[in-house]
Amino acid sequence: MRLVLTTGDIHGIGPEILLKSFMRLQDSGHEFLAAGSLKALEYYRDLLKLPVRLVAVEERSAISRLTPDKGVLPVLSVAEPDSIHPGTVSKTAGDIAMRSLEAAAGLCRDGICDALVTAPIHKEAVSLAGYSNTGHTDFLATFCGVPSPIMLFVDPVSGLKVALATIHVPLSKVPSLIRAIDLDKFFLSLAASMRKDFRLERPSIAVLGLNPHASDGGVMGDEEATIIQPCIERLSPNLRIEGPFPADGFFGAKRYGNHDLVVAMYHDQGLLPFKVLAFDTGINVTLGLPIVRTSPDHGTGFDKAGKGIASERSFYEAALLAGQIAQNRTTTR
Amino acid sequence: MRLVLTTGDIHGIGPEILLKSFMRLQDSGHEFLAAGSLKALEYYRDLLKLPVRLVAVEERSAISRLTPDKGVLPVLSVAEPDSIHPGTVSKTAGDIAMRSLEAAAGLCRDGICDALVTAPIHKEAVSLAGYSNTGHTDFLATFCGVPSPIMLFVDPVSGLKVALATIHVPLSKVPSLIRAIDLDKFFLSLAASMRKDFRLERPSIAVLGLNPHASDGGVMGDEEATIIQPCIERLSPNLRIEGPFPADGFFGAKRYGNHDLVVAMYHDQGLLPFKVLAFDTGINVTLGLPIVRTSPDHGTGFDKAGKGIASERSFYEAALLAGQIAQNRTTTR
Repeated sequence: MRLVLTTGDIHGIGPEILLKSFMRLQDSGHEFLAAGSLKALEYYRDLLKLPVRLVAVEERSAISRLTPDKGVLPVLSVAEPDSIHPGTVSKTAGDIAMRSLEAAAGLCRDGICDALVTAPIHKEAVSLAGYSNTGHTDFLATFCGVPSPIMLFVDPVSGLKVALATIHVPLSKVPSLIRAIDLDKFFLSLAASMRKDFRLERPSIAVLGLNPHASDGGVMGDEEATIIQPCIERLSPNLRIEGPFPADGFFGAKRYGNHDLVVAMYHDQGLLPFKVLAFDTGINVTLGLPIVRTSPDHGTGFDKAGKGIASERSFYEAALLAGQIAQNRTTTR
Repeated sequence: MRLVLTTGDIHGIGPEILLKSFMRLQDSGHEFLAAGSLKALEYYRDLLKLPVRLVAVEERSAISRLTPDKGVLPVLSVAEPDSIHPGTVSKTAGDIAMRSLEAAAGLCRDGICDALVTAPIHKEAVSLAGYSNTGHTDFLATFCGVPSPIMLFVDPVSGLKVALATIHVPLSKVPSLIRAIDLDKFFLSLAASMRKDFRLERPSIAVLGLNPHASDGGVMGDEEATIIQPCIERLSPNLRIEGPFPADGFFGAKRYGNHDLVVAMYHDQGLLPFKVLAFDTGINVTLGLPIVRTSPDHGTGFDKAGKGIASERSFYEAALLAGQIAQNRTTTR
C-alpha cells in the first residue's frame, strides 16, 4: 500500500514523529510519501540528525512512478514557510497544514495513494489561516461529501475500540442530538466499517447509556428507554449489539474485554476511559469515508517541538493501522 | 474511633465483605459495631466458615459500654428476615438495609459512634420496601438536613481523589444545573472538607471543563467562559484552584498527579476515569455531612453473593479511611 503522511503543523511535533515513524516503517511492506513542507522536514531532520534522505516530488503525476528506496522519503511540497519557529502558533503553519491535508486527501481520493495518516494540526493556527473547518474530521467530511463520518479510537496494544455517537458538540446539545440522529444508521454504518476495515464479520458491539447508571431504570433520564434500547432491539436480530450499559460499571468491571467495539454516546464518555487505558498508543480512525484515514491520538505538542523528545509511537501505530485497513479494503470484496 | 458498619442488602455481598473486613481490621486501633441483621451475619459467617463471634447488643445504650474483644463483633439488630436468599431482590432486604442505615447514622449523629461505613444497598429492593430516597447519599442528606453533600471518590492506592459537581441527574440537566448551583460555595465547601477530613491545609484543586476540550475557546459550549472560569478566578486568590482543563487531555496526560483533588462536572466524567484507574480499591466518601461516612465503590454484587468470592478490599479500605477521617476531625481544631 502507498501511504501519504502529512506534516501537520510544522511548528509542532508532526514532522519529527513523521520522520521517526518512517525510519521504523521501512520494512513494513508499505511505501510512503510525505505531503506538506519539504523545508520543515529538512529542518527537523537536520536538527535531530535523523538518517532520512528527503527527495522532492516535482509533480503529482510522478508519484505513481516512484519506486521505494531504503532511507529515502519522497516529499510532495504543497507550500513552504520563510522560516520555522518550533512551538509557536502561526498563520503560515496553519495554512501549510490544511493545504497538505487537502493535497493528501486528494491523492487518496484519486487512487494515487491508498491511505492517509495525518500529523496533528493546531486549531488556532488553522483558524488564523482563514479556515472555518478547524478539525481534520470536519474537513474530510466536507472534502469527501460524507455528512457524518464516525470517529473511532483504537488502542493497538489492547485492541480496545471506542466509537463516538456524537463528537465535537457542547454537552448541552448531546441529549437532543442523540434523539435527532439516525442511530440505526449509525450502528449499521459502524458494523459495515468493522467488516470492511477490520475484517470483523460479526462484530460484537457494546452500547453505553447516555445517563448516569444508564438512567437506572428511568430514575435519571429516559433516553435509554425511549431511544437507545428500542434501537438495539430493532437491530439485534441482525447485529451482535448489546446495551445500554451503565458506563461507569462497564469500564470498572472491564466489560469492554467482552466486545469488539464500545460505542460511547458523547466525546468525554468515550475518550476519558480510552485515554486512561490506551496511554500514548491511541489511534484515531475516521470511519465511513471513501478514503482510509488514521492519525495519532494527540495534539501538536508545541512544548516538545524541536527538542527531539516527542514519541512517534502513536503516529507509527496509526500508519501501520492505515496500511492494514487499506489492505483489508482491497481484499474484502 | 468506634466505627459502625451496616450490613447493606443482606442478599448481596455486604455481610460477607463486612465480616472479612472486620477480621482484617482488628489491629487497626479502631472498635467496630455492625448494624443490621444478626441472622444474616450468622448465615454468611457459617456458610463461609469465618472465625468471627457475633454478639447481639441488646440496646443502643449498651454500645458506649462495650469493650473490644478479639474476634468478637457486636451487632445491633434492627430487624430480622424470615429466611435469606443470596442474589435475590426482596422487599425485606431493602427494608432491613434502610433501617440499619438509619440506625447507624443515628448512632453517629448522637456521638455514640464516630464514623459510618455502609455496605451496598439495592435500589430496587429499597424501592420495593417503600422508600423514595433509594441512595445512601440522598438518604443521609435528608437525615442530616444537609441539602447538598458532596460525593468524593478516593483511590487509597494512588491517592487519586475525584469529586462530583453534579451527581445523579439526567445528562440533559447537567448544563443547567452547573449554571444554577452555587459553584463558589461548592468549591469552598470542598476545600473545607479537604482541610478538616484529610488534613490538606491548602489542597490543590483541578477543575475539569464541562464541554469536550473544555469548549476549545468557546467553539463547543460556553459554560467554561461564562460560569467555570469566572468562578475559578474569583476563588483563586484564596484557594489553590486551576482549570477548567480539557478532561480527556487531563486524564490522558496524567495531570491528576499534580493535584490533590480533581473536580468533575458530572457523574460519568468523574467516575469513568476513576473506575479505570482505581480498579477494585475505590472508596466513596460523603463530604459535608456532620457525620463521617464512607462506603465501598461497588454495588450489591448479587451474582457473587453467598459464594465466598467477594473481595472485601474496597470495604476494608473504606473502613480504614472512615477511621482516619474521624481521627482527623477530632484533632483538627
